[in-house]
Amino acid sequence: MSAGREKGARRGRDARRAARAETSAITQPYIIRNIPFTELCSEEGLEIIEANADTILQETGIEFRDDEEVLQLWRNAGADVVGERVRFPKGLLRGLLKTAPSEFTQHARNPERNVVIGGKNLVFAPVYGPPFVRDLNGGRRYGTIEDFQNFVKLAYMAGPMHHSGGTVCEPVDLPVNKRHFDMVYAHMRYSDKPYMGSVTHPDRAADTVTMSAILFGKEFVDQNTVCTSLINVNSPMVFDAMMLGALKVYARANQASIVSPFILSGAMSPVSVAGTLAQALAEALAGMALTQLIRPGSPVIFGIFSSALSMQSGAPTFGTPEPTLVLSAAAQLARRLKLPFRSGGSFCGSKIPDAQAAYESASSLIPAVLSGVNFMLHSAGWLEGGLTSSYEKFVMDIDQLAMMEVLCKGIDLSENGQAMDAIREVGPGAHFLGCAHTQANFESAFYRSTIADNNSFEQWQVEGEMRAVERASKITKEMLASYQMPDMDMAKDEELLAYIAKRKEQFPDSNI
Amino acid sequence: MSAGREKGARRGRDARRAARAETSAITQPYIIRNIPFTELCSEEGLEIIEANADTILQETGIEFRDDEEVLQLWRNAGADVVGERVRFPKGLLRGLLKTAPSEFTQHARNPERNVVIGGKNLVFAPVYGPPFVRDLNGGRRYGTIEDFQNFVKLAYMAGPMHHSGGTVCEPVDLPVNKRHFDMVYAHMRYSDKPYMGSVTHPDRAADTVTMSAILFGKEFVDQNTVCTSLINVNSPMVFDAMMLGALKVYARANQASIVSPFILSGAMSPVSVAGTLAQALAEALAGMALTQLIRPGSPVIFGIFSSALSMQSGAPTFGTPEPTLVLSAAAQLARRLKLPFRSGGSFCGSKIPDAQAAYESASSLIPAVLSGVNFMLHSAGWLEGGLTSSYEKFVMDIDQLAMMEVLCKGIDLSENGQAMDAIREVGPGAHFLGCAHTQANFESAFYRSTIADNNSFEQWQVEGEMRAVERASKITKEMLASYQMPDMDMAKDEELLAYIAKRKEQFPDSNI
Repeated sequence: MSAGREKGARRGRDARRAARAETSAITQPYIIRNIPFTELCSEEGLEIIEANADTILQETGIEFRDDEEVLQLWRNAGADVVGERVRFPKGLLRGLLKTAPSEFTQHARNPERNVVIGGKNLVFAPVYGPPFVRDLNGGRRYGTIEDFQNFVKLAYMAGPMHHSGGTVCEPVDLPVNKRHFDMVYAHMRYSDKPYMGSVTHPDRAADTVTMSAILFGKEFVDQNTVCTSLINVNSPMVFDAMMLGALKVYARANQASIVSPFILSGAMSPVSVAGTLAQALAEALAGMALTQLIRPGSPVIFGIFSSALSMQSGAPTFGTPEPTLVLSAAAQLARRLKLPFRSGGSFCGSKIPDAQAAYESASSLIPAVLSGVNFMLHSAGWLEGGLTSSYEKFVMDIDQLAMMEVLCKGIDLSENGQAMDAIREVGPGAHFLGCAHTQANFESAFYRSTIADNNSFEQWQVEGEMRAVERASKITKEMLASYQMPDMDMAKDEELLAYIAKRKEQFPDSNI
Repeated sequence: MSAGREKGARRGRDARRAARAETSAITQPYIIRNIPFTELCSEEGLEIIEANADTILQETGIEFRDDEEVLQLWRNAGADVVGERVRFPKGLLRGLLKTAPSEFTQHARNPERNVVIGGKNLVFAPVYGPPFVRDLNGGRRYGTIEDFQNFVKLAYMAGPMHHSGGTVCEPVDLPVNKRHFDMVYAHMRYSDKPYMGSVTHPDRAADTVTMSAILFGKEFVDQNTVCTSLINVNSPMVFDAMMLGALKVYARANQASIVSPFILSGAMSPVSVAGTLAQALAEALAGMALTQLIRPGSPVIFGIFSSALSMQSGAPTFGTPEPTLVLSAAAQLARRLKLPFRSGGSFCGSKIPDAQAAYESASSLIPAVLSGVNFMLHSAGWLEGGLTSSYEKFVMDIDQLAMMEVLCKGIDLSENGQAMDAIREVGPGAHFLGCAHTQANFESAFYRSTIADNNSFEQWQVEGEMRAVERASKITKEMLASYQMPDMDMAKDEELLAYIAKRKEQFPDSNI
């Protein structure tokens, strides 16, 4: 390529990169894997961990705090309840979980975006929870509702992103007790992909269900799953009233909960992989079984968030091998329970989207995909241990997710894939660039990265020696500039806005 | 941590980081995996690929150029030789390969550094071949013998690096026809780890064998393997005289060859995974079987270098999914042949050690480790599609290799690993930081990265908002400053230097 290309040509290429970031590898609304599961734990190991989880459930038990209704449910089910501590006879929880579906459909308002969670399927969802956002120009700052909407827009435009997610960043500019209206509405209005609901208060979960009923119809929502929400366990071995309240609302409404032990090993669990696994399994079994006591057959996902604590700085670390072992074995445990599994993500501890961020993210993402995660929260945009949603990291991660989709397809063994005609045509010492098979297949043969610069060193120099984060910044801006809102039934939109306005008037703003 | 720490404290931490980079995770001279192989190709797929390779060998054949001796060997073995084209009856090559060992020991001059190549073992070796080097301060420049020695020193000091490698960079300041003396000597003198030999001319291979005989003893070298060298196939389906010459020298001397189809799919093979695999298998079978015709029982490794060509820029691309599928299936094919397998590396196309480099490197390294590579060339230092050896990337990759060692150990299922006492001791709602199990295990419980910054955002800011590459630069300098040459028998050193001096006088310098 000429070193003296004009600015117009460069702009054209940037636009093409952005267009590729949106559309590359959109072949399906979620991934159906055609490669085997990577399983890093032996059968013997799984049996030991399961036996230890049973022991924890029988001997130590789990605390369900400040929720008499839940304690009564456990008494009725045959558990041993002393104060808020619940101990479970062997087999009780596994028996209750037989009514939970091994896979389920989460409906999107655009039916072409429906996802099936469980089995051989993989659904990617964005980063969840950060109070800060970061971009190359603006640096790090508190998130706002505008940032929230921007991340919803990016997730909507990104082909490899299957889900709109939940708290893509905290809109810190809105009052804590009302921001969920604007967050859930943003997912409903700026995207047509499936979304997650509010879990920070039972009333906010109920608002999510009501707004979903406006969007999908009351009857439809009662009979179908339209939101999947994140219920973290207060590890070790505690469910608090807030999470229990949200779990009950969603299970009663036939909506999916992800019951996720939230574990920084060394603080919330033992400093060992097998110990962490036994505890997490015990916690997840108890929380998941509770959903079936509330509404048998309601969908529930076995989740785990696992990081190793830095014993030096006290911070969580990411991309290290021990959590990979936890995740892979937990995926095996979930398959033995015949339940969908949530874990993984593009995790990193780095403060910026540099090499640390990328090594750590790939080291989290790839083993998670290979191990058979079904629902992957935090699959794009995660920075700084989850404190920051990064614009550039979001589009960099999207590129990686698109590659995972290709990887999961496995090897094309068709006649065309075998390419024996090409080998016969070319023969020893020639090249394949011009042969018929190459001409017919080169456009789609290899995944083409949206972020990577594969030009010559000299070309890269002429173009300003850009780092990956600088290319990602350009793509992000192009994407947001070209965003187009998906169509929506305007009557539903009005009804949603009216509901939100009415509810917001019913109680004063508060930051609790 | 205090934001106002003194410079002395920072220096102390940098020194500790460097010390960790050297010694972390030195537990064994190579990795013995305790986790299963990730296998991305179905049994049916492997059978199709093997049948197609047989068809290529029978119908198209392989060219062995400018080497009458090799053609005569093939005639004698029962192959069909027409001109330089050799076609193989079905089963001939697999039959010949029955004498090749499924694993072998490559001896190092320090016997504690011996590596066993094959089976469940994994040996990491540095980047091979770049004409350029790069560091953060000096930028990109041609490599020199000083750079070469520096990379040998870094590989020697790095615990997770098992092998000294070969052309860690090209010492472009030395004449082409004599630089191999200084290169092989650098491996012998500045390190005591196993090394690779020269392959750029049969005479240079012979010099490597002679120098090895000085170092190890003539008899020992004839009976044992002390160097493992890289024989690239000129794909598609050609072996040239230069590589054949080196292969013959090494096989005759009982030294190991890695027979590696060098494939940019789309140019040197079809634009498809299954087509690339069939061709690469055919090529490798022919080259490997040749070693057994020369000396039955000599060690040989099934290698593959696989990258997808960018059909836009014509450059090789890295970290993309298609070469991962090639690699994983090729590892399965090698295991079916019961032969050691070489592939993978910390590959990237990026010009600098940024996020692109790290995503691509991790996406190359992790699947390669999981898939069961036995000998991994290019496992640290690779930059810019192999054009550049990077100082900072080298130590960044070393950190990743150390993590792979932990991952390959799998889950500790001992009583201590199960940690049930800790769970009983702590119970619901408490934390594990102070419990007896944590106190006893925290020092070694989790891998601690040498490169990652896991401090708070504020601490990171106070310390200058460093990128990973800047931290790596500091570590590199610390390591080189603290390098200490391993002990050596001075009589052997003198003999080596005398041999080199004598040989260098026997012919004029040349850059061919």
